[in-house]
Amino acid sequence: MAAGAKRVADSRVTLAVLMGPTEANLRGFVHGGIIMKLMDEAGGSAAMRHSGRQAVTVAVDQVTFREPIQIGDLVTFQAGLTYTGRSSMEVRIEVNAQNLLTGEHTHTNTAYFVYVALGDDGKPVAVPPLRPETPEEKQRWDAAQERQAYRLAQREKERRV
Amino acid sequence: MAAGAKRVADSRVTLAVLMGPTEANLRGFVHGGIIMKLMDEAGGSAAMRHSGRQAVTVAVDQVTFREPIQIGDLVTFQAGLTYTGRSSMEVRIEVNAQNLLTGEHTHTNTAYFVYVALGDDGKPVAVPPLRPETPEEKQRWDAAQERQAYRLAQREKERRV
Amino acid sequence: MAAGAKRVADSRVTLAVLMGPTEANLRGFVHGGIIMKLMDEAGGSAAMRHSGRQAVTVAVDQVTFREPIQIGDLVTFQAGLTYTGRSSMEVRIEVNAQNLLTGEHTHTNTAYFVYVALGDDGKPVAVPPLRPETPEEKQRWDAAQERQAYRLAQREKERRV
Amino acid sequence: MAAGAKRVADSRVTLAVLMGPTEANLRGFVHGGIIMKLMDEAGGSAAMRHSGRQAVTVAVDQVTFREPIQIGDLVTFQAGLTYTGRSSMEVRIEVNAQNLLTGEHTHTNTAYFVYVALGDDGKPVAVPPLRPETPEEKQRWDAAQERQAYRLAQREKERRV
Amino acid sequence: MAAGAKRVADSRVTLAVLMGPTEANLRGFVHGGIIMKLMDEAGGSAAMRHSGRQAVTVAVDQVTFREPIQIGDLVTFQAGLTYTGRSSMEVRIEVNAQNLLTGEHTHTNTAYFVYVALGDDGKPVAVPPLRPETPEEKQRWDAAQERQAYRLAQREKERRV
Amino acid sequence: MAAGAKRVADSRVTLAVLMGPTEANLRGFVHGGIIMKLMDEAGGSAAMRHSGRQAVTVAVDQVTFREPIQIGDLVTFQAGLTYTGRSSMEVRIEVNAQNLLTGEHTHTNTAYFVYVALGDDGKPVAVPPLRPETPEEKQRWDAAQERQAYRLAQREKERRV
Repeated sequence: MAAGAKRVADSRVTLAVLMGPTEANLRGFVHGGIIMKLMDEAGGSAAMRHSGRQAVTVAVDQVTFREPIQIGDLVTFQAGLTYTGRSSMEVRIEVNAQNLLTGEHTHTNTAYFVYVALGDDGKPVAVPPLRPETPEEKQRWDAAQERQAYRLAQREKERRV
Repeated sequence: MAAGAKRVADSRVTLAVLMGPTEANLRGFVHGGIIMKLMDEAGGSAAMRHSGRQAVTVAVDQVTFREPIQIGDLVTFQAGLTYTGRSSMEVRIEVNAQNLLTGEHTHTNTAYFVYVALGDDGKPVAVPPLRPETPEEKQRWDAAQERQAYRLAQREKERRV
Repeated sequence: MAAGAKRVADSRVTLAVLMGPTEANLRGFVHGGIIMKLMDEAGGSAAMRHSGRQAVTVAVDQVTFREPIQIGDLVTFQAGLTYTGRSSMEVRIEVNAQNLLTGEHTHTNTAYFVYVALGDDGKPVAVPPLRPETPEEKQRWDAAQERQAYRLAQREKERRV
Repeated sequence: MAAGAKRVADSRVTLAVLMGPTEANLRGFVHGGIIMKLMDEAGGSAAMRHSGRQAVTVAVDQVTFREPIQIGDLVTFQAGLTYTGRSSMEVRIEVNAQNLLTGEHTHTNTAYFVYVALGDDGKPVAVPPLRPETPEEKQRWDAAQERQAYRLAQREKERRV
Repeated sequence: MAAGAKRVADSRVTLAVLMGPTEANLRGFVHGGIIMKLMDEAGGSAAMRHSGRQAVTVAVDQVTFREPIQIGDLVTFQAGLTYTGRSSMEVRIEVNAQNLLTGEHTHTNTAYFVYVALGDDGKPVAVPPLRPETPEEKQRWDAAQERQAYRLAQREKERRV
Repeated sequence: MAAGAKRVADSRVTLAVLMGPTEANLRGFVHGGIIMKLMDEAGGSAAMRHSGRQAVTVAVDQVTFREPIQIGDLVTFQAGLTYTGRSSMEVRIEVNAQNLLTGEHTHTNTAYFVYVALGDDGKPVAVPPLRPETPEEKQRWDAAQERQAYRLAQREKERRV
């Protein structure tokens, strides 16, 4: 393992929140924006654990909402790094909901958020390299690189539109 | 214009919100999750205006955060449709922040959210086709089709990881 | 136009907010207090735009509630100055609600809020004079002067009760 | 006392709330909009106590803000009826702030809110007449009648502007 | 009365809050956690009034919930000191709910919270002794001493489990 | 294991929440009331998992606050049953805070909450007996029985004061 490199397991963070009536949208399910806010907190927490630095969100993509989440469900947000650049970190966040009465679990969302670590002067700083170890971690690293290339290409197009 | 088709202008929605201290993140800027929640509200409002139906978020991508937003700024979320499928609608949301004392504007975020219109039975229903008219609207329709193709390809990969 | 004078249009501010379930009162409509809070934010924003200074609310009057506002409505708060004294500014705030599914608009409230601009030492400072231009703006200036006279008379009476 | 008439004391309500950091405005004092929301709750509670009915806010006037309120203060909202029409009730709300460390009190705001009692069908219903007894209560009844006349005259003007 | 001693009446604090829809739990009653948060605010306020110092919660016990509280009720939290140690203060908090339409009162909760006064350096400081005067106040002092002994014994056990 | 009995492990629930600026008290630490609200949610979730029923809080005791919790900490609430009566369940809730930058953990609170399971008619119903297995679980069952006896004795005294 490269000097200073860190494993995916070293910075995994799980948030777990009970969804109450104040989290409802107009249709009576959990507000998608609340889910994104908590995903962002989970992802940012993993980025802080990995880098030991304050981290700021720079991009979000591939949030897919498979199922509406019920008020009363216990929802977990599992965040794990997939990829690191010089100062950027991609984090995969998986959201699962549990009905507390029946114990039934539902996988509701998955997303990729990109963070940048900031130094005390508020400027980007280098982060420890991520060391993917399992086959799944390596596959995710590769997929993250593709997404990063796509993101840069899109940003280029956006500038021209 | 195809029977029942609607223009982009017909469903444009702008939200405008003053950011207060309860919107702050740990670094003292506006919480990225709050911005995403409001983007989702703006995008969902445009989707409801276009379809005349309740709309549910099914995907989010290409959120880029260019600048942190200051507490005290007046932030606008301009949402306009870029593309419609049978029951799905892609909405482009542009976020701008204004410093009220100086009048200075900053473009801080852009994102694409996908919504599906729901019938009274909670199942997807067909939406009026979108009719892009200006060159910009046509260019955005094309870019949206590319994103949609990419989204489907990624979803396929995600299933296999 | 007097040196340094500003037009009504120079400081117009519109807030636009989607009303969710957490904004409900006990009867299931939008809480009147939430509406007043947002009116105050709209009015204060216009006062800051006009004066280029922090502004503090010193009086509120003539809030009339014509119609209850539904949860789910998109509500706009249009704020424009009607009158300036040495350091005080009266702002007219008009509230309209839109049903997103039907597109129907309702005018629900109008109010006048008075703000004072504060210098860096927290003391009132002079503000640029307002230059009413259209007949409507001039009529509103006159009505504002009457209200200001009434306010001072009432304050006098209040002191004696 | 007229059959069914009620005294001011019969429906007095006091709210008392500790102001925390989430109640702050951008200048670090308690948000004026929060104060108005709580005034409305105090006034509406007195109107419900008097009428034994749900009550809806129809007008607000003469809110004067004398002093900014500090975060950490214990703030009381004393609401008492001043006047009743057939289905309308004017409530005087007095706001006082106490510094808990020093025990010092400050009178910060006074306001008049008008409510209408609603029957089970959501339509206005008659309320018990208010019976002012002390000289102060009688003086306030007279002042309330003047305000009511002024309100009607202003509403007339507003319609024409 | 010992030099510097203070009476129970000198630091009594009552909070009074109208419970709205955002205070609801999943069953549609007021969330028990909201009640505990407000109890803590009432108790801490009494401790600050007694000591003239910032006070921090160090223990809570004997919260009993007799009745669920309805959304729409006016709830009062009456806090009064029962006992002082060198820097600690036990506060009894009694919670009552009032239905505003019927005027009916219900006693819903009682609890004992222990606070410690902090000096400017954030360390515990001595507080004025409490002087119980009425037979009820003396009985409560004795009961508080028993609870304090039980608390210390339990803390001892907890350490060993 | 008795027919229908359940293990402690079967209903363990962990909540994990990132503490943001809106959770602050006046001293800049996490509000004790917020911690109690989340403890109650964790305990109630475990009670629902054990009983498969809605559960209502009936008593709280022995909350001890060892350390103030910092804004920005990731706080976990681990809830596990210690004891069951016919329809009542005691839950032990342990609170730990983690500094995300340093990875340092602090044990900040421990508490015991008692819940009652409710049937569809809102009346208490029998719950599956808890089967303590490890020595620690058995020791906790015994300590819970003592607390229950103390609680009943105190309630008796409270009635007479």
